[in-house]
Amino acid sequence: MDTELDDLRDMAKTFFEKEVTPNVMRYIENKQVDRDLWNKAGDQGLLCIDVPEEYGGGGGNFAHEAVLIEEQAYAGDSSWGASLHTGIVAHYLLAYGTEEQKTYWLPKMASGEVVGAIAMTEPGTGSDLQSVKARAIRDGDEYVINGSKIFITNGGQADMVLTVVKTNPEEAAAGISLVIVPTDTPGFARGKNLNKIGMKGQDTSELFYDNVRVPVSNLLGAEEGQGFVQLMHQLPQERLIVAVSNVAAMEAIFEETMRYVHGRQAFGRSIWGFQNTKHRMAEVATDMRVARSFLDECIGLHLKGELDIPTAAMVKLHCSEKAQQIADKCLQLHGGYGYMEEYPVARAWADLRVSQIYAGTSEIMKEIISRTLPAPS
Amino acid sequence: MDTELDDLRDMAKTFFEKEVTPNVMRYIENKQVDRDLWNKAGDQGLLCIDVPEEYGGGGGNFAHEAVLIEEQAYAGDSSWGASLHTGIVAHYLLAYGTEEQKTYWLPKMASGEVVGAIAMTEPGTGSDLQSVKARAIRDGDEYVINGSKIFITNGGQADMVLTVVKTNPEEAAAGISLVIVPTDTPGFARGKNLNKIGMKGQDTSELFYDNVRVPVSNLLGAEEGQGFVQLMHQLPQERLIVAVSNVAAMEAIFEETMRYVHGRQAFGRSIWGFQNTKHRMAEVATDMRVARSFLDECIGLHLKGELDIPTAAMVKLHCSEKAQQIADKCLQLHGGYGYMEEYPVARAWADLRVSQIYAGTSEIMKEIISRTLPAPS
Amino acid sequence: MDTELDDLRDMAKTFFEKEVTPNVMRYIENKQVDRDLWNKAGDQGLLCIDVPEEYGGGGGNFAHEAVLIEEQAYAGDSSWGASLHTGIVAHYLLAYGTEEQKTYWLPKMASGEVVGAIAMTEPGTGSDLQSVKARAIRDGDEYVINGSKIFITNGGQADMVLTVVKTNPEEAAAGISLVIVPTDTPGFARGKNLNKIGMKGQDTSELFYDNVRVPVSNLLGAEEGQGFVQLMHQLPQERLIVAVSNVAAMEAIFEETMRYVHGRQAFGRSIWGFQNTKHRMAEVATDMRVARSFLDECIGLHLKGELDIPTAAMVKLHCSEKAQQIADKCLQLHGGYGYMEEYPVARAWADLRVSQIYAGTSEIMKEIISRTLPAPS
Amino acid sequence: MDTELDDLRDMAKTFFEKEVTPNVMRYIENKQVDRDLWNKAGDQGLLCIDVPEEYGGGGGNFAHEAVLIEEQAYAGDSSWGASLHTGIVAHYLLAYGTEEQKTYWLPKMASGEVVGAIAMTEPGTGSDLQSVKARAIRDGDEYVINGSKIFITNGGQADMVLTVVKTNPEEAAAGISLVIVPTDTPGFARGKNLNKIGMKGQDTSELFYDNVRVPVSNLLGAEEGQGFVQLMHQLPQERLIVAVSNVAAMEAIFEETMRYVHGRQAFGRSIWGFQNTKHRMAEVATDMRVARSFLDECIGLHLKGELDIPTAAMVKLHCSEKAQQIADKCLQLHGGYGYMEEYPVARAWADLRVSQIYAGTSEIMKEIISRTLPAPS
Repeated sequence: MDTELDDLRDMAKTFFEKEVTPNVMRYIENKQVDRDLWNKAGDQGLLCIDVPEEYGGGGGNFAHEAVLIEEQAYAGDSSWGASLHTGIVAHYLLAYGTEEQKTYWLPKMASGEVVGAIAMTEPGTGSDLQSVKARAIRDGDEYVINGSKIFITNGGQADMVLTVVKTNPEEAAAGISLVIVPTDTPGFARGKNLNKIGMKGQDTSELFYDNVRVPVSNLLGAEEGQGFVQLMHQLPQERLIVAVSNVAAMEAIFEETMRYVHGRQAFGRSIWGFQNTKHRMAEVATDMRVARSFLDECIGLHLKGELDIPTAAMVKLHCSEKAQQIADKCLQLHGGYGYMEEYPVARAWADLRVSQIYAGTSEIMKEIISRTLPAPS
Repeated sequence: MDTELDDLRDMAKTFFEKEVTPNVMRYIENKQVDRDLWNKAGDQGLLCIDVPEEYGGGGGNFAHEAVLIEEQAYAGDSSWGASLHTGIVAHYLLAYGTEEQKTYWLPKMASGEVVGAIAMTEPGTGSDLQSVKARAIRDGDEYVINGSKIFITNGGQADMVLTVVKTNPEEAAAGISLVIVPTDTPGFARGKNLNKIGMKGQDTSELFYDNVRVPVSNLLGAEEGQGFVQLMHQLPQERLIVAVSNVAAMEAIFEETMRYVHGRQAFGRSIWGFQNTKHRMAEVATDMRVARSFLDECIGLHLKGELDIPTAAMVKLHCSEKAQQIADKCLQLHGGYGYMEEYPVARAWADLRVSQIYAGTSEIMKEIISRTLPAPS
Repeated sequence: MDTELDDLRDMAKTFFEKEVTPNVMRYIENKQVDRDLWNKAGDQGLLCIDVPEEYGGGGGNFAHEAVLIEEQAYAGDSSWGASLHTGIVAHYLLAYGTEEQKTYWLPKMASGEVVGAIAMTEPGTGSDLQSVKARAIRDGDEYVINGSKIFITNGGQADMVLTVVKTNPEEAAAGISLVIVPTDTPGFARGKNLNKIGMKGQDTSELFYDNVRVPVSNLLGAEEGQGFVQLMHQLPQERLIVAVSNVAAMEAIFEETMRYVHGRQAFGRSIWGFQNTKHRMAEVATDMRVARSFLDECIGLHLKGELDIPTAAMVKLHCSEKAQQIADKCLQLHGGYGYMEEYPVARAWADLRVSQIYAGTSEIMKEIISRTLPAPS
Repeated sequence: MDTELDDLRDMAKTFFEKEVTPNVMRYIENKQVDRDLWNKAGDQGLLCIDVPEEYGGGGGNFAHEAVLIEEQAYAGDSSWGASLHTGIVAHYLLAYGTEEQKTYWLPKMASGEVVGAIAMTEPGTGSDLQSVKARAIRDGDEYVINGSKIFITNGGQADMVLTVVKTNPEEAAAGISLVIVPTDTPGFARGKNLNKIGMKGQDTSELFYDNVRVPVSNLLGAEEGQGFVQLMHQLPQERLIVAVSNVAAMEAIFEETMRYVHGRQAFGRSIWGFQNTKHRMAEVATDMRVARSFLDECIGLHLKGELDIPTAAMVKLHCSEKAQQIADKCLQLHGGYGYMEEYPVARAWADLRVSQIYAGTSEIMKEIISRTLPAPS
């Protein structure tokens, strides 16, 4: 399998270098990637890599997906929401979709014809999923969906949105379902791409549902009220994806900064010549090495189906905080250049900040972890 | 004097609320403030507040200037480079300019007819001023200036740039002079406003000098080679200005965040209801209170002419780092909204990062401080 | 007043150098100071310095007391509980005692004939004073006291203990009173001096009350149930005392460390020669300077009777945490010697740790501060 | 092998519970363990566990040694220097000793008849081994050793001390050798056990060599001048041992603290009921889990002979700093009890501080790491 992963890595590296890196600043200006990047990636087999071949996917597993996430980070891009599309949206369909849903959507997602998104957060709810207000009320063979969602990655380009709703608004967790909403359905609308302080090339947006009607067969899975359980089961992978991208970002920042501090002069010697630089980079190297060790253990556990909820919360908590600290130290070593958007370390610093917030804030991670700590014997 | 300062504060508050706050997002989009903001401020007497009335200024002192810096921060603006114009550029002229220079430039700066900038940093030098490469070589009654400067605040709008050059390139510190360069002089050019990760509405730019000729009477002060000493004497006030804006930013962020955490609900109660929120805000309030205490002591010292170089370095080091930490904690309490550019805390977080870099990095501050630590007896 | 304080400082300095510094290691071995240190200090007028002369005191104020606390710290001693005796126990008597109580106890405390202590904490309660279990039940003209106290400073040598009890066990805060308990009263007993990880020369002990009978006139103040209010009013001074000793400890550690790093060689140069040393000491100097600024402001407020509860909590929170960080950095610069008990920095590191716990933990400080933060307008 | 390690763990657990835990406070009082603890452990086969059976050892490897280090930490003991005796001193003999040296010393060390120590540090040198001043000058068939050593673990009880000397004082690193010095040799003397702020039951002492004569056959290895290389090769294992004990300490502290916070009440509920407690323990659990992951990877590398010098420095740096932070947080959650020597968390906090100093300070680790960071391509 290692050779296969190496080949994939080479291919991905070439793809990102050619198709993505030269366009990063344009994505940022446009607040989104080029739509045809999805199709190009689909042509190369880089979408839905961990979806079985029978559904048009790459037939791989999370190790393959991790390689792609890493190579994207090494290429200096944070704009393209491919890992959400593949590792989260396609994964929900694969895990809970009916055969019909899988057969219909997955090949389109694998080719890039359809871009996927998932809509959980609402203006009035953050990490508190039990209190979502969007509702899908059954009316004959259709659900009528009303509500709004916010901070939706791929929201601007998505052709299909897995939407978290209450099919039974009387219930808390037990009333939650996921419904597949094609974005060309009447009543669906999107706000403009949000201005964020980082991840500026990613089309994060607000979504509006005004009497959106979809057939009941668009319910994800066989029965209503399974949404909360589905979310709980998928969150470990979502959090692991964040951690993979965080560790890859650390590695990219480290390499870039080593180049910078060796190349720049100050006070008559290279910046590397100062003890302060050496100690900071030694700390960065150590933190990066430690995070990589834990991440690789977690990836190994996940491949065996053994990554539990608290451990996934730990790896997300740890890697997102360390990545920010590393970006901050490395930015500082760049002096004024560290504040210029064209420098990858500058963008990384601003991009990474969201990792402590999305997929559950650091505080939510601590709540999750604390709940499972063993009571004393 | 307190009443006078209160009146000034009221006036400034009104001015910022009316003329600045509604336009902040536009400044960001344009990467600069409206040019006529300078004139409006001049009309109200808000420029050159600490310049004597005989030169068109407000006749005040640093306490007045501090009030303006604070009110700008409370108004949520980081775009307008007024404190650099007044507290630094005009201050150099006042301190070292010939009577002719003062009479010519200061009234124009006070009215807003002329926007001032100061150009120290070069692409190849950061905090290492002794190694500037820009040079002004005397040719008859003129200096011929060649070189380039980077990261120049007000660089895009400046009508006049105090430019740090070597009048004697053979010398290190002793070869440095400051020269007044009107920006309509042939050979002077500016790059476009730089894309930074914060302070996005501030026109920071690169400046180019290609055989720029100015009369020798544009030398700041009576003789060549005084530049390094002039810089050393002005840096305490420059650093104190940074600290004033940092502490005011803390106060603004604190107030905004208190509003947010009281107003938002999560998991069935206001965010304020969580112990984590209370403890974080208690830490923020403490850090803010402590920084204010030290800042006010330093302002008092400065008004008496007793703020020495290491103490100015300390107040800049301390306040810039604490402001960042406070912004970071408060951003986190905002959840996803903390990452949206329209939220003041989000902008503040990105804006403040430069304070640990400009006017001398935190590491340079430590070097300066360590040099003056008393040798043991 | 400044001259007077300077004279006091000189006298205190001489006293500590002669009577205390040479004996510090013995105090540690004995887990208490020599009993006659109290008498010697009394003879010199160093006890009850802020008690009016009519009660045998020094007629000074908190500024005088602060000088003594500082000089003790500069002398490298943490064993002698003089500031508790003067600044807390005598202060309670002065503030709330009947004329009879003041006339009887204060002169004895000023001379050193009586050592005072105050007993709040119980084995089952930490900072939660409302739930104290010790009770003083009135029986005719006497109170019968039962219960136990723990972590009582001066507990081993005290001749008189202000004891926090419930005179009405049915009530929470409203049932609390303070009662003066001479330690030669039958039924009173003390455990042996506790082994702590720092402050090893201070006689901290457990106290036991088994049907201890004292006259009702030993109630502190005129009526029962005032204890909680009395405690709330005195806690700011208690916390300020902790902060004074913390800042003085910072200053002592800084000076000692500067001596060490200049004196020691490693890898062919003095430790001071390393950038790491310089930057750490610059940080220490800055933190020390900032803490001193805020402390002096708080002392000034306290002298005017304006130090409120949250500000006192802030100064205690800030100074206790910074002092520990400073001790930690300076210990590290000492290498192996920093771990040896004979080195002041080593003892300071272990001594200071209790400052984040006693007089209310850092977490309690945050609770107190958060309760008074202004609700948003 | 796992079963074998489990059996060893059970046996070690029983041994520590019976022979060590009940005596810990006595060791502390005596500043050393009971001398016969060594013999009892030898009888049980717990000394020299990773020494081949032919030399009287246990025939195991570092995995076995790690189990013993962990169980000692879980048992709350930091006094007994067994891991130094086995994992360092015996290991030097095994790696570099002549057959005669191995045959003579190792069985005695395995039985506990001989306690081993290694003496590197000198009063005037910390981590700077190249500048040791102790010298062994050849005089016929003997070396004459003069000098002194400081901070020597097991120094008080050692029967044999591997002593780092210059056999050629003209040289730096190339002049260094290790010599076996039996402590009953005339001219050898020890100072009393040093008073440290932690590790109080460990007999750390100063050693003096005054014309100590040993046969040239006591040179460790076949030729002079190999000492520096030997030290460099052994330091990774020494640092890994520190990391193993640090991680085990984290685990022991975590468990003890969970017990405490569930068992104690404050303000009407268990301490566990506060969000602050939950978040701190979630952070502790995460840091502990991450450190364990990296440590186990490093142990795996070491068992394969692939733990290189910078990675060993990283694991020591990371684990020693995290262990201290964890001890600090957990101490704080104990309130006043966290400051009492009888509470394991209190001792652990003071004990662990030395881990950032010995076997190379954190700063030395950063130097080592930075030296091997890849130059940019």
